[in-house]
Amino acid sequence: MPALQNIKVAVDAVVFGYTSKEGLSVLLIKRNIDPYKNAWALPGGLVGDAESLEEAVQRELTEETGVNINYLEQLYSFGAPNRDPRNRVVSITYYGLVKPDAFELKADTDASDVAWFNIKNLPKLAFDHTQIINVARNRLKSKMLYQPVGFELLEEKFPFSELEKLYMAVLDRPIDRRNFKKKIMKFGFLEETTEKQMLDGAGRPGNLFRFNQAKYFQLQKDGIAFEI
Amino acid sequence: MPALQNIKVAVDAVVFGYTSKEGLSVLLIKRNIDPYKNAWALPGGLVGDAESLEEAVQRELTEETGVNINYLEQLYSFGAPNRDPRNRVVSITYYGLVKPDAFELKADTDASDVAWFNIKNLPKLAFDHTQIINVARNRLKSKMLYQPVGFELLEEKFPFSELEKLYMAVLDRPIDRRNFKKKIMKFGFLEETTEKQMLDGAGRPGNLFRFNQAKYFQLQKDGIAFEI
Repeated sequence: MPALQNIKVAVDAVVFGYTSKEGLSVLLIKRNIDPYKNAWALPGGLVGDAESLEEAVQRELTEETGVNINYLEQLYSFGAPNRDPRNRVVSITYYGLVKPDAFELKADTDASDVAWFNIKNLPKLAFDHTQIINVARNRLKSKMLYQPVGFELLEEKFPFSELEKLYMAVLDRPIDRRNFKKKIMKFGFLEETTEKQMLDGAGRPGNLFRFNQAKYFQLQKDGIAFEI
Repeated sequence: MPALQNIKVAVDAVVFGYTSKEGLSVLLIKRNIDPYKNAWALPGGLVGDAESLEEAVQRELTEETGVNINYLEQLYSFGAPNRDPRNRVVSITYYGLVKPDAFELKADTDASDVAWFNIKNLPKLAFDHTQIINVARNRLKSKMLYQPVGFELLEEKFPFSELEKLYMAVLDRPIDRRNFKKKIMKFGFLEETTEKQMLDGAGRPGNLFRFNQAKYFQLQKDGIAFEI
C-alpha cells in the first residue's frame, strides 16, 4: 500500500425539512473559515480517525447546527480531484428528511450561522454543494416511489390533502389527485378515520387519515412500486 | 482542516456476470500480497492523487483482471474503522453487470489469479468483501424494478424465456410467468418479432423478441415502476 496518498476524507449532510406551509427546505451553515468564508454550505467536515462515517456526520451536524439526528442515509461519494482548493478531499454525503420545528438551531465551531433555506431559493453555495443537493433531491424523489414517506413529517391525524401536498413538494410537480389517492390507499399503509377535519373556512370537511404503523414500517422495509 | 487525519481512500469493483447457462457470477482476484495473501477478493486498490474515483476503479479493474469497462455505477462507501488491518481505509465501491464471455481475463499487479465465481458458490473473501457483494446484489435486485435490463446481456433476438431466466437469476426467486410477460410487454421496450425460435428438442417454437433500443434507453433514463 503506497504510503504517500494525499487525500482527505470528509462527510457532509443534506438535511431536508418539510412543512405543509413552507414546503421543502435545506439546512445550511454559514462558513466562518476559509476557503469560501462567509459563504453558505452544507454542514460537514473531516472524519476522525477512530469514528465511523455515520458517527462523523452526526457529530459534524450537531456541532455546526445543533441538529441531532441518527437516521441519515448514505447518499453518494464525491471525489473529483479539484473539488476543494486546499487539498484533495473525498466527501461521503448523507441525507435525511425531517420536520424542521422539531429542532432548535445553533451555529458553532466552523459555522457562524445556520438556517433553513427553501429549496427554490438557495443561496450560492461553497464547493460542489449545489451539485450535492441536486443529487440528494433526485434521490429523495425516487425514494418516494419505492418507500412510503410522511410518517415522521405529518401530524398523527391529517386531511388527505396534506399527504398530496407533501408528495407534490418533494416531487416538485402536480399529481393526478384521483389516481394518487386510489394508488396510495391500495398499499394499505394509510387508514381513513371517522374523524372530520376542522375547517377554518368554508367547504365540506373530509375525514382525517392516519398511518397504519405496522404496515408502514413493513412496506418501508419491503419496498413498494409506486407510479404517480 | 486538521493535517493529521490518517485514513486512506480505495475503490473496489463488484462486476457481476450473467449467462443463461451459468446464471449470475462475480469477478474475483486472488491476492498475492498481505494481508489476506492467497485469499480471493474484489478487484480494487488505492486511489491515485490525481485520478477521479471512476478512473481509479477502472484502472484497478484493468490492471488486476484484464477487464476494461467504463460504465460502473457507484454502489456505497464502506468506512468502518477496522475493516483493513494495516491502516484505516475507506472503500468507495462500484458495481456493474456484464456478459463474461466479452472479456479475456488476465491477472496482474496485486493479483495472482482471476476468475468468475457463481454467486451461489463464493469462496471465503478478504476484508468485508462478502458484505460488499451482498449490498451490490441487493442493489442489482432493486435496480431491475426501476430500470429495464438485459440489453447488453442477451443476444440481439432471443426467446422470451431468456428474459425470464435473467430476472429469476438476478432476483434469485421464481416469477409468475404469465404476469411477468404481461407487465414487461406493457412497458414497450421489448418487441415480438415474427421469427421463430430454433429448437433443439421437441415443443412448439415461440417467436423471438428483441429490445426496442430507443424505448429501452428512454426508460432507462426515465425509470419504470415494476412489481414482479
